[in-house]
Amino acid sequence: MRRTVFLLLTLLGLPAFADEGMWTLNAFPSATVGERYGFAPDAAWLDHVRLSSVRLAAGCSASFVSPEGLVVTNHHCAAGCVERLSSAERDYMATGFQALEATDEQRCPGMEVNVLEAITDVTERVQAATKGREGQAFTDARRTIFAELERGCATSDDLRCDVVTLYHGGQYHLYRYHRYQDVRLVFAPEFAAAFYGGDPDNFMFPRYDFDVSFLRVYQDGQPLKPEHWLRWSSKGAAAGELTFTSGHPGRTSRQNTVAQLLLQRDVGLPERLFWSLEAFGWLEQFAARGPEEARVSGSTRFYLANGIKAQRGMRNALIDAAFFQGLVAREDALRAKVDADPTLKARFGDAWESVARAVERSRLHRTRYLALEGGWGLSSRLYDLARLLVRAAAELPRRNADRLDEYSDARLPGLKLDLMNPAPISAALETERLTFSLTKLQQLLGPDDPLVKSVLGSEGPRATATRVVNGTRLADVAARRAVFDGGQAAVEASDDPMIRLVRTIDPAARAIRKRFEDEVLAQLDRGTERIAAASFAAYGTSTYPDATFTLRLSFGRVEGWQDGDRRVEPFTTLEGAFLRHTGAEPFALPASWLKARDRLDLATPFDLCTSNDIVGGNSGSPVINQQAELVGVIFDGNLPSLGGEYGFNPVNNRAVAVDARAIVEVLDKVYGARRLLKELGR
Amino acid sequence: MRRTVFLLLTLLGLPAFADEGMWTLNAFPSATVGERYGFAPDAAWLDHVRLSSVRLAAGCSASFVSPEGLVVTNHHCAAGCVERLSSAERDYMATGFQALEATDEQRCPGMEVNVLEAITDVTERVQAATKGREGQAFTDARRTIFAELERGCATSDDLRCDVVTLYHGGQYHLYRYHRYQDVRLVFAPEFAAAFYGGDPDNFMFPRYDFDVSFLRVYQDGQPLKPEHWLRWSSKGAAAGELTFTSGHPGRTSRQNTVAQLLLQRDVGLPERLFWSLEAFGWLEQFAARGPEEARVSGSTRFYLANGIKAQRGMRNALIDAAFFQGLVAREDALRAKVDADPTLKARFGDAWESVARAVERSRLHRTRYLALEGGWGLSSRLYDLARLLVRAAAELPRRNADRLDEYSDARLPGLKLDLMNPAPISAALETERLTFSLTKLQQLLGPDDPLVKSVLGSEGPRATATRVVNGTRLADVAARRAVFDGGQAAVEASDDPMIRLVRTIDPAARAIRKRFEDEVLAQLDRGTERIAAASFAAYGTSTYPDATFTLRLSFGRVEGWQDGDRRVEPFTTLEGAFLRHTGAEPFALPASWLKARDRLDLATPFDLCTSNDIVGGNSGSPVINQQAELVGVIFDGNLPSLGGEYGFNPVNNRAVAVDARAIVEVLDKVYGARRLLKELGR
Repeated sequence: MRRTVFLLLTLLGLPAFADEGMWTLNAFPSATVGERYGFAPDAAWLDHVRLSSVRLAAGCSASFVSPEGLVVTNHHCAAGCVERLSSAERDYMATGFQALEATDEQRCPGMEVNVLEAITDVTERVQAATKGREGQAFTDARRTIFAELERGCATSDDLRCDVVTLYHGGQYHLYRYHRYQDVRLVFAPEFAAAFYGGDPDNFMFPRYDFDVSFLRVYQDGQPLKPEHWLRWSSKGAAAGELTFTSGHPGRTSRQNTVAQLLLQRDVGLPERLFWSLEAFGWLEQFAARGPEEARVSGSTRFYLANGIKAQRGMRNALIDAAFFQGLVAREDALRAKVDADPTLKARFGDAWESVARAVERSRLHRTRYLALEGGWGLSSRLYDLARLLVRAAAELPRRNADRLDEYSDARLPGLKLDLMNPAPISAALETERLTFSLTKLQQLLGPDDPLVKSVLGSEGPRATATRVVNGTRLADVAARRAVFDGGQAAVEASDDPMIRLVRTIDPAARAIRKRFEDEVLAQLDRGTERIAAASFAAYGTSTYPDATFTLRLSFGRVEGWQDGDRRVEPFTTLEGAFLRHTGAEPFALPASWLKARDRLDLATPFDLCTSNDIVGGNSGSPVINQQAELVGVIFDGNLPSLGGEYGFNPVNNRAVAVDARAIVEVLDKVYGARRLLKELGR
Repeated sequence: MRRTVFLLLTLLGLPAFADEGMWTLNAFPSATVGERYGFAPDAAWLDHVRLSSVRLAAGCSASFVSPEGLVVTNHHCAAGCVERLSSAERDYMATGFQALEATDEQRCPGMEVNVLEAITDVTERVQAATKGREGQAFTDARRTIFAELERGCATSDDLRCDVVTLYHGGQYHLYRYHRYQDVRLVFAPEFAAAFYGGDPDNFMFPRYDFDVSFLRVYQDGQPLKPEHWLRWSSKGAAAGELTFTSGHPGRTSRQNTVAQLLLQRDVGLPERLFWSLEAFGWLEQFAARGPEEARVSGSTRFYLANGIKAQRGMRNALIDAAFFQGLVAREDALRAKVDADPTLKARFGDAWESVARAVERSRLHRTRYLALEGGWGLSSRLYDLARLLVRAAAELPRRNADRLDEYSDARLPGLKLDLMNPAPISAALETERLTFSLTKLQQLLGPDDPLVKSVLGSEGPRATATRVVNGTRLADVAARRAVFDGGQAAVEASDDPMIRLVRTIDPAARAIRKRFEDEVLAQLDRGTERIAAASFAAYGTSTYPDATFTLRLSFGRVEGWQDGDRRVEPFTTLEGAFLRHTGAEPFALPASWLKARDRLDLATPFDLCTSNDIVGGNSGSPVINQQAELVGVIFDGNLPSLGGEYGFNPVNNRAVAVDARAIVEVLDKVYGARRLLKELGR
């Protein structure tokens, strides 16, 4: 991969020092970093960083920053805890939270953190166990050896062990974590400061967010004393300075073939955006009817807006001719290497063509698949609940292995939680969501489709949605429980109009799902595995594996970028936040900040961007200097960084972090957080 | 071009008989048609067709179909007349219209039709008059000679003469039309039959629309007796049969370079669609509030939906890899021809590069240009009126040549009509439109843009829009007239909040417009002209000129196409319309049809599609067989035909028409239109 990248950069006339890669900590390219920056992390440095790094099991990154188990992460990574600790009287999302004394620290319900203690290569054990097996037999054998290895490793409840599949099967490593389940909230700012700028600023830079929170890990009722933790940098990082990020990138698809990328660029992303933007306009206007409509649709609109921004960023990356050409060159280089070696050619030579065939089949079937299996944005909570009931009744009596994935024994607890969630469901919002979904169903499948005709009859989308939402009893948890407990007989006997609607659609939905999974997705998975295997055969661990929500280290530097005719500098200042304050959401700083303005050193660097290679899951990752000091906390990437799903564009892919200096200045002058600052050594 | 097309087809492995082209009637490739179909139209045939063809000056096509001046066209081409003849008591859009007696035929206010009597080549006269001139001097000299030629030709009020610029200046032809201004409505069906299937079926096939109407041209109070008219075919056309269409395609951009096409494919069309779809979702939800909201937003939603469908079709064409490769091959072939000839190379060799540079500048400035000069879909009627007043006050005191185009003397009457249009303006709709526009302004320019800050202050989009719409007096025609008559002084003295909003935005809007016009659009125009000149130098009239809303003849045949794994047959039947009837809009046939069902021969071909090369402006064009009989009436193209803007894709570009046999069957059995049928000889 490194070679490919150089080739690509040479082709594009880019600087040959792209600091690409999400490297595992046991295969970090220290020598390369040393050559480029004059600093080569040694084993002790890497171990120290690894043991100072923390994974939030729910999907974020973090780090220890004191010998008393203090952890820094993003506000948005702790928001679930902040919300759960809030009540009608105390809304910590609005007011922020600060434990003035140790005894004020409050336990976050359900939060778990993991610290990676050891990595063992178990590739040979797995390969021996799966040797000569194909298809289902291979999958079963692999599952068995994984379980065996994990059981042998996790010798106490404090340990968590996972076999991690790297390079899509090129390597298998056993990761042993210490798990901690007593995690307490120490500090969180107001949401208005953490997400200042809201959706307009989301994925943007320059940026002015105080997206940080502090937690503390406890063990046996006492603060944990970790052996390793990151010191807080007093001087921060300078422009151009080497930086590392240590965190848990969630997923990348950097083995995508050009055929897949073209489908994404021209069809997948734009069609998804068409759908999402129409739904967003629809819901925004619904929200404009009044405060109640705004409230009940708030989270749906937030997730839609966030998705729209993300998809736009991904699309923008793919329509960037130089970036796309780089991805083409990456594929060409690997294919040339494969073609030049008869053994590799025999094993992998036709992998790209088989992916291209699956992509062509995808073009034929994807619209119906997405329309019926609900991949497209807005749907209806009540419809989803009804489908869950109808399908659970059919699936649960089957053998675990024969069920649809989401009804497997492993996922049953989550599914029941969802079903029994007593959160109120707004009939007004449901009617709009279902009307929109049915309108789109008619548009996507066409008015002549027999299923569309049987669903809509002569009523049309709005009348159908209104009738079904008004008639269903599934907003009531007890009614859902009764159907769930009653199984297939209860479903068949039900005259609930939402259940009847699902039963009308379900046979067609299952049919297209099966067809799409068999003819498209399975083919794509197999193709991706073979291409990853070819890549591993060609380049080995001289490249990095796709992201797997396991610990990775990236290197880069503090660096802005050129956006058209605009130069983006890598730092903002606290002053900038006040200059953008209008008082109207989302540009309304909280009162605590406005009051502190005169006390603050407004020249303090606030947010910064770096060329570190990160993706979703890296939220909360520490930005570290050569001395392994914390100089920032990652909370986002810029819009071009969303192309990181497909490849790293050194020209403009930037990680976005809160500067360590701003955290100290604001904790001091805005929040008077003396106890916290003292613990940080400031 | 013909050669290029063959090259392209060879490259793509397509059949080499693509019947591409919108040919002028004095340079029709009869020999080619003869070779392919065994029928070569001679001069008499072409003259007969030309003189049977009718242009509706407002933007449609039509033809004479009886010796008594009877004209057939689309319902949607006569809808303006049908609406104007309607009243609160008699809604002819809903009920249809039929003149049972000659005296029942009602004159269409403002309608004009043109018949092309003569074409004269005046290229040498124009070239002599403009020789050696450049820039403004060239434009002025050309305008002068055009006016002189047109004056010399239009010797009576009955004549209309236009110099037509063909091949972007390769040829100039003087078109002399007979103009008729007494046109009367004879027959129109119900809108529900004409636009059956509504937006879901728009640009689609199979199709079941009765989109026809009949008009009659009068002269001196008596029906015109045209010498030439098309006989009505009794047997219609068969699959595979040669067909011609004679009509007035409005505009094509088939000289677009690959750089322009890429910008359209990846940026222009998708970004426009993102905007339009969000606006559409927003307005559809507004319409769902109640019947009044639905009514006041009806036409805005209709035009948005129509535009969305059209833009999707254009985008789909450009993401079709084979089609796009064809357009690349077309450019490559022309560039190779230019490069091979030193004279051509010196004159035109760098034209493509200069277009590419303009396209790059466009990427930098287009967002601001589109956001401020309102190219993007939804805006506000009151805002537009206020801008008209503010700009008219500044522009009208200037010399005609120094004004913005839309304030030239020639366009002043239309502008005043618009300003004084007394149609009521819904404040509720205006508030939503302006809120949306201001939200987008903030999003497109960014919240830190100084203009955005000065427009929105601390209010935000909705509060600003509400205040401005509630405060403005411009919904009142008298208030508008007062400002218009008062000129600059009245504008400056005005405290009307909409006028003040426009005055805040206008300097920035004018600045970006000037920059975009100078640095992008002027460069693109010059480049397009040079490429067209290169094409004309290379191929001459062996190819056809871009569409200019002047009479063109295309040849093709009755033919379906392959859409993914679906074969689309070229004919539908009347039975199909009844099979899709659900009773819910837009699949609700009118009562007249339901009542007549048992009388109708349901096997009668209803709509058909052909491979004729048409675009917007061809609506109402006759489809003609070798005997110059009318076998159908064009009313639409399929979705892929929208790519016809850029090039003709023989694989799936299809024209859509009402079959002549269905017209007779339905006039007879549904409408009992004996008088009309008799006149058609049936």
